[in-house]
Order: sequence, then C-alpha cells, then structure tokens
Amino acid sequence: MKISDLGEFGLIDRIGKTAPRNARRAPIGIGDDAAALLLSPSSVLLATTDMLIEGVHFDLKTTDLYSLGWKAAAVNLSDIAAMGGVPRFCLTALGIPTSLTVEQVDEFYRGFSVCIRKQGTVLVGGDTCSSPKGLIISVTVLGEADRKRVITRAGARPGDLIYVTGTLGDSGAGLEILRSAECGVRSKNPAVRKLIERHLRPIPRVAEGKKLALSGLASALIDVSDGLSSDLGHLCEQSGEGAELFADRIPLSKELTSVKGLKQQPLEYALFGGEDYELLFTSPVELEREIMSLRIRATVIGAITRRKGMRMVTEKGEIHPLAPGGYDHFLRLRQRGSVR
Amino acid sequence: MKISDLGEFGLIDRIGKTAPRNARRAPIGIGDDAAALLLSPSSVLLATTDMLIEGVHFDLKTTDLYSLGWKAAAVNLSDIAAMGGVPRFCLTALGIPTSLTVEQVDEFYRGFSVCIRKQGTVLVGGDTCSSPKGLIISVTVLGEADRKRVITRAGARPGDLIYVTGTLGDSGAGLEILRSAECGVRSKNPAVRKLIERHLRPIPRVAEGKKLALSGLASALIDVSDGLSSDLGHLCEQSGEGAELFADRIPLSKELTSVKGLKQQPLEYALFGGEDYELLFTSPVELEREIMSLRIRATVIGAITRRKGMRMVTEKGEIHPLAPGGYDHFLRLRQRGSVR
Repeated sequence: MKISDLGEFGLIDRIGKTAPRNARRAPIGIGDDAAALLLSPSSVLLATTDMLIEGVHFDLKTTDLYSLGWKAAAVNLSDIAAMGGVPRFCLTALGIPTSLTVEQVDEFYRGFSVCIRKQGTVLVGGDTCSSPKGLIISVTVLGEADRKRVITRAGARPGDLIYVTGTLGDSGAGLEILRSAECGVRSKNPAVRKLIERHLRPIPRVAEGKKLALSGLASALIDVSDGLSSDLGHLCEQSGEGAELFADRIPLSKELTSVKGLKQQPLEYALFGGEDYELLFTSPVELEREIMSLRIRATVIGAITRRKGMRMVTEKGEIHPLAPGGYDHFLRLRQRGSVR
Repeated sequence: MKISDLGEFGLIDRIGKTAPRNARRAPIGIGDDAAALLLSPSSVLLATTDMLIEGVHFDLKTTDLYSLGWKAAAVNLSDIAAMGGVPRFCLTALGIPTSLTVEQVDEFYRGFSVCIRKQGTVLVGGDTCSSPKGLIISVTVLGEADRKRVITRAGARPGDLIYVTGTLGDSGAGLEILRSAECGVRSKNPAVRKLIERHLRPIPRVAEGKKLALSGLASALIDVSDGLSSDLGHLCEQSGEGAELFADRIPLSKELTSVKGLKQQPLEYALFGGEDYELLFTSPVELEREIMSLRIRATVIGAITRRKGMRMVTEKGEIHPLAPGGYDHFLRLRQRGSVR
C-alpha cells in the first residue's frame, strides 16, 4: 500500500495501534501535542537522540526494514545503558521517501517495537513527514536512573581496570561481509550469519548497565559505538587520564576469529570497527572480584594510566601508541593506530 | 570554514560552548552518552519531537539560517505550550550537507539559542552527522507541567467557547510572499516584512499556555500548526464533539488585511495557512470573564457543538460546512472548505 493512500494521520494511527504502550507511566502518548510521562520522583531523567540517514548510516541493499527498526532503537537504548539508566520512553521522527510502502514502514516499526519491548520501553510520540530523498530516522530515548547512581565518562582514575562486555569487532566484520557481493546476506555459514546479525541487530546492554549502576562499582562508563580506540579515547579525555590496552585480552568472538577471507585482522575490527554497542567501563582494581560477581560477561582489557594518551601492549610486551580511530562524520576516515 | 576542518567532535564542542546551559537543572549536558536532567518531583514530563527537512519544510532560498534555527526551536516549544507546560530542555539532531559552512551552522544555533533562551530552555544534547542531500533538522523538547494541570486536546464539551491567541493567517501569507519573486524578502513595506517575520520567526505562546494551565480554565488546548480548520478538527475529533466558527470573529492582523496583491482572502490564510503557532483552546462559557482576566490576547471565535463536524457561520448568518484543510505530508494537498 502507498503511504499517500493512508495520509499522515492515518499512518500515525497505524503506528500507534501496534506500538508498545504503558498507560500508567505514559498517561498521554501518541496523538496529542506532546506526550505526558511519569518518572519516579527520586530519578534523574536521561535523554539521548540519534539520527540515521539512508546512504550515510545504512543502505537498504544491506539491511531489511525490520533490522533497521531494531537498530534505530538499539543504538539509542545503548546510550541510556551507557549512563547506567533504564530506558522508559521513546519518540521517533521519520522522513519517508515516496518509494517506501506502508508495509515497509510496518516492518520498521515491528523491529523497533520488538527491540524496545524487550527493555520495557514504550513509544510515546514522534513525527512523520515526507522526505524528498532517502529514509531519515531520528530517535529520542528517555530513561531514568537513581540520582546518585548515574555513571558518566568522566570518573576513571589512574590504576582503574578497563573492562568491556561481550566481544568486540563482530559488527565491523559483519558490515564488511554485507558490503562484499561475494559472501553477502545469503551465506549459510553460521559464523558469517552471526557476524552479520551482530551488525544488523545489536543488543543494547541495558541489564549490564543497570547492574553496574546499582552496584556503584564502575568509575566511568561509555558504549562502544565508534570503535574501542575511539570510545576509550573519549573516556580518557573526559576523565583527564590515559590508558594501556592489553592486545591479547581484547575479547574476540570465535566467529570473528574463524571466518576466512576478511580484509583485516580481528583485532583491527575490535579497535576501529565500531557499532558493537558493548559497554566499556572502568573500576578500581580492588573491586575486580565484585565486578566479576555481577555476572555481566565483562573482560579486563587494560588499565587507566596517569600518563596521557593511549597505548597498546602486545603479547610480547611491546608498547605501541594507539590513536583514536572511530568514525567521524565530517572527517570521513578511520584513522589507524600503529598496531599491525 | 568547512565543517570537515572541524570534524564531528570539534563541531559538537563549538555548539556546546555557546548554547544556553543550566548546571543545576541539567547536571550532565552535551558530551556524554545521554544528558542527565532534573525535574520537579511533582511534575509530569512532557516530550515532543519534530523533523524539518530541506525542500519539504523549508527552502534556504527563502529563509536565513538564523531564522531557521529560531523556527526549529519555536515549533517544538509551541507543542509544549500546547499542553500548558514549561519547556526545559532540548536536543537537536542535525544532518548537515557538505555545502553548509561552519558559520552557517553557527547562525542556525544562534537563532535556535536566542529562541530557547527567551523561554529559559537549555540545550542538553543531540547528534550531528553528514547528510548526502539537504539539511535535516530534528529537535526534541522536554518540558514539565503540574501533574494535575496538563491540558490535552480531548476535554472540549458542547457549549464551550473556542478561543485563539493573537492573530491567524499571517504566516501563510508571509510564506506566499517569500515564494513570489516580485515582492520577496527585500520589500521595505513594514506590513509585508511583518508577515514574513511571522512566518520565519513565530513566537511560541509559552507564557499563554502556562497561564491557561495554572488557571485551570481551559478544557482543551492545541497549537495552530497545520491551519485553524485542521487543528480545530483535531481538537473536535479527540474531544468527540463538533464546532461552529464565527467568520467575522477570527482575528486577522492589520498587516494581513492591508497588504495588497495576495492570492487569497485573509480568512483563507487563517483557516488553511498553518504555521501560526497561536494557541487554540476551549473553555466553558461561564468562565469567559476569567479567561479575559488572564490577559493572554485571546479572542472568542466560536463554540463547541454536540453536532459533529465543523461549520462556519458568516457575518450574514449563513452556515457553511467547514472541512479540515491543513497540511498532510503524504496527501500533499490543502483541501478547501466551502467558505469563499
């Protein structure tokens, strides 16, 4: 069905009917001038927004609409997780090209809804308009956290251990596979499919962030969206410290290390690939046992140093400087660190 | 200066340095994974988002960047005003084409900041990315209101009077003037300039919405963004009632009625033009004196009726049906009511 057959208000009705709701927390949701929402009185409100533009952030040749909806939600939920918060509400603004059908918009919201429903988050409003070229998605997520438990990027201190949840680099490798015609989406290799899935439908680490916040054990926290080297760079900069990473401790999935024919080494995807949406955090060394008891699948990958800048320590004990190498939208390059 | 000379993080720093801040209400603003914000414990949180796309919502041939920034803020502040709330925080997501300079982005944020600062609203976060074609702006505004004082679109009852603040139609006429090459931006006629200004830099009626909420006098409230006929249609639909408008009571500015050569009658701009961002509200007839004592420049323009649908009563007492005729992004037409 064409979207022009429904019209703007018809489309909004259709989205509203299937979206996750919560009448108690969101007494006024979709359909008024603004949503009216309730938070716990002891909470601090968390707010984040991200824009995804066709041709910049995604390519409809390499993603389906369901996955795109999922990912648009996940990247924003991840930002709330990276403060130690719980995502409660979201708003979506969509610029929709005439080439998109109502069924494709349905698929987008199906993926979006499944992803937010897993976190108990509800859709409370947004905007829909026509786009002259390409699909444009802007998502805002609102969350809450205990006022005294918010974890910023700025609290890391020299000697703190650096941890990361899950494994890194899968998403970057998955993107490369999607972009190469030979072994694209149709591959039946389960490892290849896993890497692709990690790129298309990342899991926001909300439960892990919440455990870290409740425990009070983490000194600084960020999510890995631009790539480990870049996001650790942000954390170091805002904490006013430096860092050393242990090359052989960076967690890599068995899928990433087993798939043949990738253009880069697994460690390079981990350092510079981005879009893993794992949590990167720091904690005083004496709290390592407590961190492990949280059962959040976190690995120690390095330590914060008084000496500024980032360095990588290889298995052989060689120390190399490490430059941030994530994605910068306007520089449009991924700078490489000196690690081979 | 080119934006690529600054890079994404340089641009974010630059925006953050000049944007309105409030360290008490927004202890964590721009620069972390999410903003951390404080509301009054007795408040309900209000949230709204709007997307503006070059070529759909604006044309850089007819607006300067300062006005565009102003308007991007104003249309969202107006949505908070339309709930009777106070706007506190905003987030901006920008998709920036390579053709835009750093100075143009500065101008955008200068206009944006002046508009939000007037309302005591602060910029707490956002996203910047490159856009392959055209400037894309997505703004989210968060506000608060007393839990028991939020005014929705749904409370109008038969017999309630219909009010509107200010005057209607100026913005639609201003847009038409901007689009016609003959008498565009350079006109020195103060009336023409006023109509253009009303289109480019609308004033969100935040103080008026707040007075209405505090007074408890309004039964329903919406802002006039799509056009009086369309927005009154929304209010009637959500209240489950109908309405009669008195044609000769609809407030028109002396500028709108004096400027020569416009393609439509002043009343047509008022009914179908949109983007006035005045407040349209209803209140029981016995409270008229109290409404007037609020000093919000409101005019009675009609009454809510049990009979569904909208009708227009002319000066001569003739009754014509009135169809909603605002802007629908996907139908892309302005339906006309039967009023001449």
